[in-house]
Amino acid sequence: MTVEMEIICVGNELLIGKVVNTNASWMAKRATSLGVMVKRITVASDDVDEIAAVVAEALKRKPRFIITTGGLGPTFDDKTLEGIAKALRRKLEVNEKALQMVREKYEAFAKEGRIEEAELTPPRVKMATLPEKTKPLNNPVGTAPGVITTVRGAILIALPGVPSEMEAIFEESVVPMLKKEAGGITFFETSIFADSVMESVLAPLIDQTMHDNPYIYVKSHPKGRENTPHIELHLSTTAKDSKNAKDRLGKAIIQLSELIESKGGKIKVQTRTQ
Amino acid sequence: MTVEMEIICVGNELLIGKVVNTNASWMAKRATSLGVMVKRITVASDDVDEIAAVVAEALKRKPRFIITTGGLGPTFDDKTLEGIAKALRRKLEVNEKALQMVREKYEAFAKEGRIEEAELTPPRVKMATLPEKTKPLNNPVGTAPGVITTVRGAILIALPGVPSEMEAIFEESVVPMLKKEAGGITFFETSIFADSVMESVLAPLIDQTMHDNPYIYVKSHPKGRENTPHIELHLSTTAKDSKNAKDRLGKAIIQLSELIESKGGKIKVQTRTQ
Repeated sequence: MTVEMEIICVGNELLIGKVVNTNASWMAKRATSLGVMVKRITVASDDVDEIAAVVAEALKRKPRFIITTGGLGPTFDDKTLEGIAKALRRKLEVNEKALQMVREKYEAFAKEGRIEEAELTPPRVKMATLPEKTKPLNNPVGTAPGVITTVRGAILIALPGVPSEMEAIFEESVVPMLKKEAGGITFFETSIFADSVMESVLAPLIDQTMHDNPYIYVKSHPKGRENTPHIELHLSTTAKDSKNAKDRLGKAIIQLSELIESKGGKIKVQTRTQ
Repeated sequence: MTVEMEIICVGNELLIGKVVNTNASWMAKRATSLGVMVKRITVASDDVDEIAAVVAEALKRKPRFIITTGGLGPTFDDKTLEGIAKALRRKLEVNEKALQMVREKYEAFAKEGRIEEAELTPPRVKMATLPEKTKPLNNPVGTAPGVITTVRGAILIALPGVPSEMEAIFEESVVPMLKKEAGGITFFETSIFADSVMESVLAPLIDQTMHDNPYIYVKSHPKGRENTPHIELHLSTTAKDSKNAKDRLGKAIIQLSELIESKGGKIKVQTRTQ
């Protein structure tokens, strides 16, 4: 059975176009490679009601995993945990384990002479103030812990928005869970490139290839300019057995390439295969 | 009154992390610069039901503009118009004006010798098959027209996913509408950078600056590594009057810089101001 995930990215900087959402693509790529299907990505503002609404809507669609990024830091506009608490109708409370994690970080910073005082000021305590019945996740490279809880069969995880921190917690704490849930299924993909043939000519050839190769998904991505058609054809499949998957991909590539060459197209096979 | 927009990006390539969603950030930045507020960005798969659900949900939130990108091309998995038709409970039909646009493109391609026949094959007619009561938008650089319609007070616009085509239709057809609706309001932003001070120390200083400068929004973005705190402070405001906005930003920058320096932080002011 397919394990489904939704990604929720919180941050006004994404909605004003100041920041390109590389967190979403990084996490989507990583989850996909582990056999998990990302069903939806939603970007919400730094607003408690918006965050609560987005989380509640995702829960209704019943994915196995909901992962948020952003809004866990010490400043006033880090509101993700308040939004999650509202969506789950749970109170916010200082989590002792999280507080210990935050305390150790600042004590280490003080020892290194980077800050004058390790005192747990309100902005620092804020990072350890979690919704009831949640657990902190160790942040190997930053201060704000991640947060995890289960809600009616869904695993809800909140990660920071700083890419290095998000990635570190994801690798350490999330990847093992995804692997376990996906049960060894893996995603395989490869691309070939077609030159000198337009996408409207390729369309029926893709249809035929997908019809004859039922486990293969083919998607065309026009890359060239108007005067020089250059189209990436991305072939993918999901399987437990790597040899089987690669054989399937190989068979589909051969058929699609022959069809395209029969229409005067030129094929370039990319070497990267995952 | 604030003019609100939602962006919907359609494409499995975004959900598998193959492609970084630069369309969303480009469009969000452009709309923000014209005084429009982007409230949400949603990424959906190439699935008619998913697209229909995402469009229907966005309509319920009543933004003034809903703009989709992706899924207008000739291949089987270009399903955005089918999804929109389903959400609006409208039939799909060949739109004569759109068909004329598509026909002229292929006739020009044939004249240039790039294709053998300008014949309107089913994949080509597909690009002119729109939901009832919609209008095509000229695509200055590609083949698939954009699509526009109004639905209960919302303006719903579908644009292609190829960035050059999305951007060209946006500039030609969408920007004039956004300008008219936003009525001359503009977004102003600038950044200063704080070194040698941690985000948890900055948090109360940001609070104070925002309290004393009610029209200014300040957001901190940690950029450094753990051993070298380097934090961008992004200040923004929305106003009709550019001088007024710049004065406000200047006043907030001075206050925030002085507060940070009083805590031992070092400030670098960025020159770029929009």
